[in-house]
Order: sequence, then C-alpha cells, then structure tokens
Amino acid sequence: MATEETNQCREKYPMKGGDGSYSYAKNSTYQKGVSDAAKGLVTKAIEDKLDIEILLSPKTFCIVDMGCSVGPNTFSVVKNILEAVESRYRTHQIPEFQVFFNDHTSNDFNHLFKSLPLDRKYYALGAPGSFYGRVFPNNSIHFVHSSYAVQWLSSVPKEILNKNSSAWNKGRIHYSNSAEEVVRAYEAQFAEDIQWFLHCRAQEIVCGGLMVLIIPGRPNETPHSQTLPSLIFELLGTCLMDMANKGIVSGEKVDCFNIPIYYMSPQELEIAVERNGCFSIERVEIIPQEQSHANLPEKARQLASHMRAATEGLIKEQFGEEILDELFDSYTQKIQEKFPTFQSGKGINFFVLLQRKATK
Amino acid sequence: MATEETNQCREKYPMKGGDGSYSYAKNSTYQKGVSDAAKGLVTKAIEDKLDIEILLSPKTFCIVDMGCSVGPNTFSVVKNILEAVESRYRTHQIPEFQVFFNDHTSNDFNHLFKSLPLDRKYYALGAPGSFYGRVFPNNSIHFVHSSYAVQWLSSVPKEILNKNSSAWNKGRIHYSNSAEEVVRAYEAQFAEDIQWFLHCRAQEIVCGGLMVLIIPGRPNETPHSQTLPSLIFELLGTCLMDMANKGIVSGEKVDCFNIPIYYMSPQELEIAVERNGCFSIERVEIIPQEQSHANLPEKARQLASHMRAATEGLIKEQFGEEILDELFDSYTQKIQEKFPTFQSGKGINFFVLLQRKATK
Repeated sequence: MATEETNQCREKYPMKGGDGSYSYAKNSTYQKGVSDAAKGLVTKAIEDKLDIEILLSPKTFCIVDMGCSVGPNTFSVVKNILEAVESRYRTHQIPEFQVFFNDHTSNDFNHLFKSLPLDRKYYALGAPGSFYGRVFPNNSIHFVHSSYAVQWLSSVPKEILNKNSSAWNKGRIHYSNSAEEVVRAYEAQFAEDIQWFLHCRAQEIVCGGLMVLIIPGRPNETPHSQTLPSLIFELLGTCLMDMANKGIVSGEKVDCFNIPIYYMSPQELEIAVERNGCFSIERVEIIPQEQSHANLPEKARQLASHMRAATEGLIKEQFGEEILDELFDSYTQKIQEKFPTFQSGKGINFFVLLQRKATK
Repeated sequence: MATEETNQCREKYPMKGGDGSYSYAKNSTYQKGVSDAAKGLVTKAIEDKLDIEILLSPKTFCIVDMGCSVGPNTFSVVKNILEAVESRYRTHQIPEFQVFFNDHTSNDFNHLFKSLPLDRKYYALGAPGSFYGRVFPNNSIHFVHSSYAVQWLSSVPKEILNKNSSAWNKGRIHYSNSAEEVVRAYEAQFAEDIQWFLHCRAQEIVCGGLMVLIIPGRPNETPHSQTLPSLIFELLGTCLMDMANKGIVSGEKVDCFNIPIYYMSPQELEIAVERNGCFSIERVEIIPQEQSHANLPEKARQLASHMRAATEGLIKEQFGEEILDELFDSYTQKIQEKFPTFQSGKGINFFVLLQRKATK
C-alpha cells in the first residue's frame, strides 16, 4: 500500500520555520536567485512541452511544489508556473488550478498557510510527507516542481555512523574528504533514494505531465573532494570538531552526526532517470549563477546564515540549541578566512525537465 | 472568482492548538461523544445512499472533514467513513482515497499533521481556508463531513458592535437574552452564512455526493432564550461583566466582544437547504446524548474546560492572556452554582444527511 512507503521514510530535516532572523523565510535569497534564474527555463518548458491533450483533459490542473519549505520562494515559483500554463491555453477555457505544497510533516505549514498570497488564483493545499514515498494518488498530478530539495537524502547512510564499519565517518560531518567507503555509502544512498523518488512520481504524474527539478550539484566528472558545497560543509564540520576539542560538545556526538545531503552531477541524474524508465529527459541545463557584489565579511555572513537556516534543526537535535550562536560565529569567521580557497571548488545549479512517458 | 470569496471571509476562531491542558486535542471528549453516537448514522448513510455510480466513477475517492480542528476526533471520524465506503465496494476494485482536512488558515495544522495516524490508508492533505468560501475545485469531492463546526458564524454581525445601532449588544457576549434586534442580527448572519456554505459545497461536491453535518443546536420551535448552549455562553458573559465591574477588564471591551456562534434548529437548516435547491435532505435525526455520570464539581470543570478550549483564542485576542485563568475559575464556580437552572435549557445535537442533486 502506497502510504506505507511514505511512513517508512524518515520525516526529518525541515528548513527552519517561522520568520525569525535565522528562518528559511528570511535566509533563502540564494535559493530565490537560483529560482529566478530558472524561471525563464520553466516558462519555456511549459510553452514547448506541455501537450495540448494534457491541458484539455483535466477539469482541474494540479501543480505540486515538492520540498516547498515555508515560502516566500514557493509562492513566486507557483505564480510563474501558473501564468505559463494559463498562457498555453490561449483561446481554450482555462481550468481551475489546485496547488499542493509538499514538504516533510515537520515543516512549518502553519507559517506557510498564513503567508499564502491573498490574490492567488488557485486552491492551496498542504501535502505533508517525504517525497521519497507516495504523497498523491495515481495519475493525479500534471506538473511537479522541486527546487533545492532532492539533494537531501532520505537519511544518513547507516554504515557511516557505525563504529565497526570501514565506512565509519569519524570526526567528519560530510563525505567530501572522507574515506572511499564513506563516499560509496553516500553514493549508494543517493542511488536508492533517487530511484524511490522517480518511482513514486512516475505513479503520481499523468502521462505527458512534466517534472522540473532544480538541483545544487557538481559538474560532470568532478570528484566529491572538489565540490564547492561539500567544502562548505566540510568547514562546518571542522568548527564542530574545534568545539569538541575544547570540550564544548562531545566528540562522540560529532562522530555520529552527518549531513544527509548528496551533490549529484547531471550525468548521475540522467543515469537514474534512464534506469527508472518512465520519464524522457527533455532538457538538462546549467543555471547561470549571479555573482554577489557584497564585500567579503558580508558574503561570509550571508553564507553562514544560509547554512544555519538549512541545518539548524539537525544540529539542534544532536547538540542542543545552546551551541548554535558560538558555532555559527566561528563558522562565519572560518568562511571569511577560507573564502579564497573556495575558488577552486566546483559547484553548479542545474535544471532538469522530465516528461512522463505515455507507456510503462 | 472562487478564491476571492474565500479571502473575503474572515479567518478566525480556531480551536486551541497544540496539546496543552486547555488544548482542543485534550478537551474535545464531548465532541467525541457526539461523533461516536453519530458514527452509526454515518455508516448507514453511506450504506444506503452512496450510489454505485458515484463509487465506480472516480479514480480517487475524495473525503473532506470541514472544520476538522487538530484531532484526534477527525482521525476517528475519517477512519469510520473510509471503512464504510470501502465496504460498499464489495467485489469491485477499491479506489485510492484522498482525505482533505479543512479548517481556518490559523488552525494548528502542524499539530494535525504530526498526529496523522501512521497506519492510515489514505493520502492526507491540509486544506486551509474558511468553509464560507470555496476551498476545492468544481465537482471534486465525494463526501463531506462536518461536525461541530457550522454553528460558528463567519463573523459577529456588524450592527451588534455598533454603539449607535438599536442592535448594539451592550454588556452581553451572546444573543440569547438580548434585545430582539440583536437576535434578528444573529439570525440574519446565520441565514447569509449558511447560504454561502451550501452554495460553495454545491459547486465542490459531485452529483450524488453526500454531505453529513453534525450540529449543536436547539429543538424546533425553541426560543433562543431557552437554548441550553446559549445559557452557557450567557453565563460566561456575566463572568466577564463581573471582571469589568471589578475593573479587571474594560467594560467597553466587553461591549464590543461577542461570540459568533448561532444555535440553529433542524427546521431552520431544512429551510436553508430548500432555498439553496442543490441538495436533497435524506435524513435529519436528533443524536441521543449520553448523560455524564461525573459529580457536579467534575461536570462543571469539564464544561468550563470544554468552553475554554473553544473560546480561549477569541478571548485572548480581545482581553489578553492574563485574564484567562481567573475568568475560567470564576466560570467553573458559576457553572456549579447554576447547574440546576440548566435543566430548563433545551439543547440538541442533530445529524443531517444531504445528497447533491443531479441537476441545477
């Protein structure tokens, strides 16, 4: 039964809710920049690839934003999709729109609902549950959007937390500079998760329906050790180890703390899609990144705040709330020092357009 | 446009969220008793009235609980509906189920989502928004359930808060013992609201679809002044006036505070349904009430807690949080003193089964 799949998935890692200074709502300008850059690609995808049969068949056109967090980005993304779909109808009667906002059950849906645009032209619904399980009935969704979400794994690979395993990731919180076994464990977890993701979406999306994924990752052929976002996580790990060395946090707790994020390459995703077999790959594109014109201390502060909004929940759960300020102060400092070395790191955001095939 | 209707409705009066001692989650045993008593009626309604054509047409069977609050009652209600619908399918293939939990945008959906039963056999969604506006697309819902919700008006009738109106409800927070004009204003607000409710549901529910309403009200022909729940509200008003007389709260604030609840009779609802014209009335039944065997102080405490869970949000907004304990302590006391007089009050819970007509 479909919902059992959902329940087996671990329900964790929501972005920080509410609208405080470290909330996702106030620290998602980077994701917004990426989303804005992807807007044109989304519009063009809808113009070029949304078949007229799909448009004319439903009474209600159903859109999902998977891993929507709490806004405001999701509202702007949805507005863009809706306008692009509407303009495809041209002289035909425009249907009603239903928009499903999906994220983990522990996401701050209360905040999301209170922020819903008053002038929205759609019925808004919250769809709680991990996207590594089924969230919707068969053949019920026409358009899936997911930005900055599928890099999160369903869980940390078990073996890297196991002292007796050769994949034990002692003293590190991510895999970029870890033993080969750790990297393999992360890769395997990604391979499994992405298959679940595609399998579930293949059942939910109608034939001809579209799925847009916007993913932070690494260029093809780039080793994990040279992946920019991994370097940034690595540095957060060293801050935690510094605190462990000073006795502020337990070293053992650092040893069994890992960030369940995997930076895939476009090629890895393409291989996964082909293996699943239900989608055609319509477009893969690297999203151009705007360079920040802030000065170094400001850049460091922005990056640290962004990382805090994304990881605060996980860190709090493991180490307690009281370490957060000290940790992120020292992190800001370290980012500033190491910023020049980040130049060698390679990171991309890429856009993928998939279409649900008619058969299988 | 449908969603504009929704936005024009005032989004207020959620039950108290979370799971503290005065939360709805812990103070809804009375509603649960009513729901349990209605269970058999719901099951029978589905057995007798859910046509096989309705059952076989959808790929997904869609159920809504309108005014669901935060659980646990809503989960038990939904389970009962789902089992009854499933058993109607007999040898036919059972479809997938989608269950929409609807309540005001300010309802504690976070708590609701975290409490979702792990063994549920449906896709669960949150549908935020007032049910006095559109919440769902046209012809998308097969079964609507709403228990202990439509007695809440969309807002307090404006004129009763207006010093210069003959309907000004000075010194009272409800209408049962008020001037005729106040009663008329409440009646008019109810008449308008219930038409909106039926109009919106008529568009959302498929032809042949069912709607079950469980409503606290008054027997036919009973004047408002003899309606038990009104007497109970009246008493809460006297506690607030006592506090105003002692200078603890402002008398002016009491003058412009009213509870937007209307206790309709089955006959009033029937007239409204006939006026709307889109539904047939399949059944109207008074739900037998279990008598509590608690002693008087315990009964008084239970009733006061129940009233606190339902009204705390409204009272806090008007008078501040700090008055709550004192107010409800004196209320508990007064309920205990006046309990014998409640015997003369008339109150019922009634069950209504409506079916969406095939035409119009």
